[in-house]
Amino acid sequence: MKNYKITIAYDGTPYSGWQKQGNTEGTLQEKFETILERLAGGKVEIFGSGRTDAGTHATGQVANFHMDFEGTPEQLKEKINQELPETIAVREIVLVDDRFHARFHAKKKCYVYTIWNSKEPPVFLRKYAFTVKEPLDREKMEKAANSFVGTHDFASFSANARSKKSTVRTIESIDFRYDGEKMEIAFVGDGFLYQMVRIMVGTLIEIGEGKREDDILQCMTEKKRSVSGFTAPSKGLTLQSVTY
Amino acid sequence: MKNYKITIAYDGTPYSGWQKQGNTEGTLQEKFETILERLAGGKVEIFGSGRTDAGTHATGQVANFHMDFEGTPEQLKEKINQELPETIAVREIVLVDDRFHARFHAKKKCYVYTIWNSKEPPVFLRKYAFTVKEPLDREKMEKAANSFVGTHDFASFSANARSKKSTVRTIESIDFRYDGEKMEIAFVGDGFLYQMVRIMVGTLIEIGEGKREDDILQCMTEKKRSVSGFTAPSKGLTLQSVTY
Repeated sequence: MKNYKITIAYDGTPYSGWQKQGNTEGTLQEKFETILERLAGGKVEIFGSGRTDAGTHATGQVANFHMDFEGTPEQLKEKINQELPETIAVREIVLVDDRFHARFHAKKKCYVYTIWNSKEPPVFLRKYAFTVKEPLDREKMEKAANSFVGTHDFASFSANARSKKSTVRTIESIDFRYDGEKMEIAFVGDGFLYQMVRIMVGTLIEIGEGKREDDILQCMTEKKRSVSGFTAPSKGLTLQSVTY
Repeated sequence: MKNYKITIAYDGTPYSGWQKQGNTEGTLQEKFETILERLAGGKVEIFGSGRTDAGTHATGQVANFHMDFEGTPEQLKEKINQELPETIAVREIVLVDDRFHARFHAKKKCYVYTIWNSKEPPVFLRKYAFTVKEPLDREKMEKAANSFVGTHDFASFSANARSKKSTVRTIESIDFRYDGEKMEIAFVGDGFLYQMVRIMVGTLIEIGEGKREDDILQCMTEKKRSVSGFTAPSKGLTLQSVTY
């Protein structure tokens, strides 16, 4: 069987996240497996680079699956796109080495969090940004974000840190981009814990609003969820790319 | 009574256009008049700079209305925004001279038409762009668009040209912007006939696809709708600004 690497964009609004979970309907994994199994005439499993939460978007989620298909990857891409709803699109399919695994071989991920910082409602970003009405102090936020960069124990910034699994991760860069009332924060790292980006963003927002001192380094030493900020909503988060 | 100039953004997807028309429910004019009349405790009429078609969007529609309101324009803006659905937002309200009329005094308008030129479905632009799968010849389109610039009789590019009303308009500029698979065409002019931008765009697309020679000048001399191209869908069109 061939091993295909697939790059996917989706509007996460109507979905229960990437990964199949018990009885949950409407996951992206299920959507793809249903289509692939119909095309293959048998069982197909798709492996995502990682879960994205319910409501989180992707412009460059990556996955792989093993399947026999008579035709080029380009033809397979077109066949899948024909079956997908308009909220999901295959951007690329390529053949890869049999051992390639989208989750285990991921080296880097880039997540972008979008904040709409204005009293005016974000008509065209209402599903893709989190609105903060109070003016955010950009300098304070950028400075505080620097403390996240590097290799740290992010236990305080994870929703389900378990004692047996390592909560050490390396963040390579955090970049802020501004476009009018829109603020985008791009996180590049070797991996992210469950809800880690959203909790980092929530903490940065509290700092930017002046509701919290810049206590990021202190939070990291305490290793408990209760010391960090709120979990910013999933709709502001987009998985932009996965590097192998 | 005070005269207020209001600048509005809306996602046109769920609406039947700007202007109230007989029994049509769900126009933007109705939405605003309902809210303003509740605030004023009496009849209020809102005058838009022009109609936008059903499904057409706006980032800078302008209108005016006469009303008594105790409070600053900023407070009125907040009150209206509280009542509006998330698909509509007031961007600005200012007090203007009693004689100001949003339609009669409009000097220039800028409309932007967005084309998604790719085989890949436009997940995040699905409601705001028209998809053309065949590669468009940008040079041919830009060259053809030049023929529209200037003062011309646009009768061939209007859906309901009536013999008694002038169909002469002046287009000041047409600019093309590219961002990956996205093509935006910005039209600035002193006024546009019914569906004029959408018919110009449809004709330019036919030229860009190679289905049609560049016969714009010829079309203009014939002064009938049948000689020009198809009407590009309203969802790709956005009223960007109105100048006074």
